[in-house]
Amino acid sequence: MSADLLHYEDYPVGLEVELGSHHLTAEEIIDYAKEFDPQPFHLSEAAGKASVLGGLAASGWHSSALLIKLGVTGMANKSAAMASNAMDEGKWLKPVFAGETLSAKGTVLARRVSAKRPEMGILTMKWELFNAAGERKVEITGVQFIRVRQP
Amino acid sequence: MSADLLHYEDYPVGLEVELGSHHLTAEEIIDYAKEFDPQPFHLSEAAGKASVLGGLAASGWHSSALLIKLGVTGMANKSAAMASNAMDEGKWLKPVFAGETLSAKGTVLARRVSAKRPEMGILTMKWELFNAAGERKVEITGVQFIRVRQP
Repeated sequence: MSADLLHYEDYPVGLEVELGSHHLTAEEIIDYAKEFDPQPFHLSEAAGKASVLGGLAASGWHSSALLIKLGVTGMANKSAAMASNAMDEGKWLKPVFAGETLSAKGTVLARRVSAKRPEMGILTMKWELFNAAGERKVEITGVQFIRVRQP
Repeated sequence: MSADLLHYEDYPVGLEVELGSHHLTAEEIIDYAKEFDPQPFHLSEAAGKASVLGGLAASGWHSSALLIKLGVTGMANKSAAMASNAMDEGKWLKPVFAGETLSAKGTVLARRVSAKRPEMGILTMKWELFNAAGERKVEITGVQFIRVRQP
């Protein structure tokens, strides 16, 4: 494990981490939906417009996956991360439409060291996805396991 | 909206729906990880073995997406489904490994009709993913909006 990776000690409660951004295309929305969420309103502009979503909108699971991707590239892969075993809650606050540029932020809500495994820290993270206008689109609360530098 | 689609009235509390299965390959695990969860233990057998996961294991978001895919093809697309806005909880109980055949089940935990929109029912669903040996791998609780046949 590389010493220059960030560890549990580097993530105090309240820390906010900017995680970068992703421009979402209609093609990506449709490709994801074909593989994982083939409901009509995720597969065409016309069906999206006719639905409660009001346009071609990404599957909530797709927008969640994008948020987690930004969390991985923007934080977990710079850290001595050890996977995760749960998400507590996910809210798809507003539809995520084709053509939006989405940026993400992670916030450390709580943390503790595992009682059973003192080399493992457990961060409770809030992950948020925003569009360019600053509208909050997705919020996920979940845990992230991370190595303790000095157990 | 086709009359032969299943509606809110067709999903009593306690109903269990078998949702079909999916054989998961190493290639699918790696492809998903490259796009959405590029952590080393989801990208190679060697790194997976060296991690807490113990082998090349799918991202929890990938196994969740597969579970939801089976929910969509096995239930939502046979229903007058109207999207969803939240998941309450997701548990990645055990790693999902390359080569496993995964089957899914949906259970109606609770239901109500929207007070604001009497044409819309809200099902609270439990979604579960199992391997061929019957081990429970993923459990997700979430809501599913569905049209009421006779509002």
